[in-house]
Amino acid sequence: MNPSTSALLTDLYELTMAQAYLEQQMNQPAVFEFFVRRLPPHRNFLVAAGLEQVLDYLSTLHFSQEELAWLDQSEQFRPPLIEYLRTLRFTGDVEAMPEGTIFFPHEPILRIIAPLPQAQLVESRVMNLLNFQSMVASKAIRSVLVAGGKPLIDFGLRRAHGAEAGLLAARASYLAGFAGTATVLAGMAYGIPLYGTMAHSFVQAHQDEGLAFEHFATIQPDNAILLIDTYNTEAAADKVVALAQRLHTKGITLKGVRLDSGDLADHARNVRQILDGGGLSRVEIFASGNLDEYRLRDLIQTQAPIDSFAVGTAMTTSSDAPSLDCAYKLQEYAGRPCRKRSEGKATWPGRKQVFRSYTESGHLDYDIITTDDDQQSGHPLLQPVMKAGRRLAASPPLADVRRRVVAQLGQLPQSLGTLETAPTYDVRISMALQSLAQAVDRVSTTKGVT
Amino acid sequence: MNPSTSALLTDLYELTMAQAYLEQQMNQPAVFEFFVRRLPPHRNFLVAAGLEQVLDYLSTLHFSQEELAWLDQSEQFRPPLIEYLRTLRFTGDVEAMPEGTIFFPHEPILRIIAPLPQAQLVESRVMNLLNFQSMVASKAIRSVLVAGGKPLIDFGLRRAHGAEAGLLAARASYLAGFAGTATVLAGMAYGIPLYGTMAHSFVQAHQDEGLAFEHFATIQPDNAILLIDTYNTEAAADKVVALAQRLHTKGITLKGVRLDSGDLADHARNVRQILDGGGLSRVEIFASGNLDEYRLRDLIQTQAPIDSFAVGTAMTTSSDAPSLDCAYKLQEYAGRPCRKRSEGKATWPGRKQVFRSYTESGHLDYDIITTDDDQQSGHPLLQPVMKAGRRLAASPPLADVRRRVVAQLGQLPQSLGTLETAPTYDVRISMALQSLAQAVDRVSTTKGVT
Repeated sequence: MNPSTSALLTDLYELTMAQAYLEQQMNQPAVFEFFVRRLPPHRNFLVAAGLEQVLDYLSTLHFSQEELAWLDQSEQFRPPLIEYLRTLRFTGDVEAMPEGTIFFPHEPILRIIAPLPQAQLVESRVMNLLNFQSMVASKAIRSVLVAGGKPLIDFGLRRAHGAEAGLLAARASYLAGFAGTATVLAGMAYGIPLYGTMAHSFVQAHQDEGLAFEHFATIQPDNAILLIDTYNTEAAADKVVALAQRLHTKGITLKGVRLDSGDLADHARNVRQILDGGGLSRVEIFASGNLDEYRLRDLIQTQAPIDSFAVGTAMTTSSDAPSLDCAYKLQEYAGRPCRKRSEGKATWPGRKQVFRSYTESGHLDYDIITTDDDQQSGHPLLQPVMKAGRRLAASPPLADVRRRVVAQLGQLPQSLGTLETAPTYDVRISMALQSLAQAVDRVSTTKGVT
Repeated sequence: MNPSTSALLTDLYELTMAQAYLEQQMNQPAVFEFFVRRLPPHRNFLVAAGLEQVLDYLSTLHFSQEELAWLDQSEQFRPPLIEYLRTLRFTGDVEAMPEGTIFFPHEPILRIIAPLPQAQLVESRVMNLLNFQSMVASKAIRSVLVAGGKPLIDFGLRRAHGAEAGLLAARASYLAGFAGTATVLAGMAYGIPLYGTMAHSFVQAHQDEGLAFEHFATIQPDNAILLIDTYNTEAAADKVVALAQRLHTKGITLKGVRLDSGDLADHARNVRQILDGGGLSRVEIFASGNLDEYRLRDLIQTQAPIDSFAVGTAMTTSSDAPSLDCAYKLQEYAGRPCRKRSEGKATWPGRKQVFRSYTESGHLDYDIITTDDDQQSGHPLLQPVMKAGRRLAASPPLADVRRRVVAQLGQLPQSLGTLETAPTYDVRISMALQSLAQAVDRVSTTKGVT
């Protein structure tokens, strides 16, 4: 069983709804949009990610024989649904913001137009994919913002929420500007550069720390980064100096040392001094250990002599905001715009487009959310990516997505590009969209739904 | 590609370490233990979960041809490692606390004894599995503690961190006492009862809310729970009353209504009154919408007339503590106990056992962590579950695990069974273990590692 590809990775009510729609012959085109209702605390903007996996999911969606047999014997559904699912393929259209696009609350980042049962069925997994990667990219970019260009590596697999989270967090953080990951599968799956050092267990399995260093450097002569905090960090740095001379005679040059505990700034200063004093000024210092964007900022601001950083759990889990307040909502059915008016959860109706305007200096100025048929000035952010179930273009290389992110960071108003909460970015609702909402509400009221 | 079963779902350094161990012929038995360093904020105890998936992983671990080919062409490793991985199977022993066991910081919940390269290689995924499910079970049980026996349903898939997180959160919360889940795949994979209602989109896709209710009830006559908050909750409840009489003539009895927004207690009282006034006192009220254990406790304490609850994002992501401060550490190699002494991250050395003592009334009294060869009074919590790579027994049915959890909740000291932070539970370190740590430190010092 592969949860990442199973069509049964969905909520029960999606199947119940599909059955009801089919029996009511409600299979006209439905328009669903995915958006975030509000920014998580401490976020000034979000980064769209996960579209690639959504398109993979939609273009390969099918129910296996085993899944159909299980549904059948579960006795929760009637034969017409099972027959419908047997041949189900996604035949809809998708428009979306490209991955790596900076976005704001209420802006749809993805729209699905498909026969109602199809568009409904995919809800759970589409949300699951977009929520997670957008959340991680939006968290990771905060570390990128404060790292001053120093390389950041994803070390988060062990405390990511399961297998797919580990894999996709590597992807989302790389997309947002990390230099690479320790997760090997992300190297194979996405070509993301892999980084790693050594484990405490390697040191412990040797009876002598210095011997462990020597063995490791001899076996990894091209990439020897020695972990020096197992017992006493500064004492270990002294051993590194002594070892470096012996290694030099073998033609081996140490690449770096890694700190993983204690006061990283203090240790980094002490270790830098020891290394420099021993003629090892080119040996780099790599730091890890419960880092997040705030600790990273402190280390950078106090000019701790650290050359690169691993960021793990805090980034992979988006620890201060481990979900987005996101929704995937029906905005139009059979040509009729509609909206939900639940308290605190009302949506803007109809198919929408987002236009982004820039200042003369090229910075983001404001966005306008409007109806899809309304032309506004600015750059339209939603683009067609799938027609009738087929992708319109091959997926862009992740390197391109990274460049898009870097370019946008350069366009970010200075107030948004910090860890502090900034004044809200200007997102306007067009007159056309406001009028549509009023018209929809009038019709609803006439029909008696309130 | 299935991230849940890929042997490449590991950190790069695990492969680097394995290569180094092999080239140093360091393949003696190694003992690693998994434990949590400290309780997350607001937790008084933890619930062990994920062992089943760890044993699955260990007993099926292998590198595919495709993975080996990729490793080979990556040019990061030498041929002897690739050859070793080609035939690698896990041949070690595992001892563990049964799933559902309540545990505390520093207590190992799993021990792996295997040739060093094997025991090292599995680190990342073992941690990834135990961290996630134990974290979710330990969060979910907090809702169980305050729900007063009312059914709780997992609705968290859409904001779980990827596919496996959605699936395994359903499992971990069911294990901890939830009644079921909306995640269909968890029904197929683990036999967990499935629950679901209807979507806002179903209401919106109809031009008339009352008609949507009627269609849904007619199509789901045995399980009609109507979602009544799309436009105006109380107005929708009036429609439900009117509808119930028409349905009655068709022999259909409504099962319930669902609230999903606004002040749930207020709406529940209003809706209960409307339903009761309409002769629908047996129609249940089901509530969802950003619930966590605190909101749940408030609703229960104020006696809001709600019969069952869905808990989603807060539980699935363990929103207030989305990771455990857990570790998987080498405690013995080739018969020699060892430990890490990094600042704030020191471990207790050697193979350990945990003995649990109970009061005369059958409540948890204190635990003693000691060396594996030391006999203490109380019940030993770590039990053998795998020998030479083979499971010693079939996995217990989840129903048994649930019963174990319920039994332990009855044994929990009252102070621990609340949402407030309680005085720390008494976990003692035996004299034998303290002596071993001192002996290990003496040897290390002699050998010059500090």
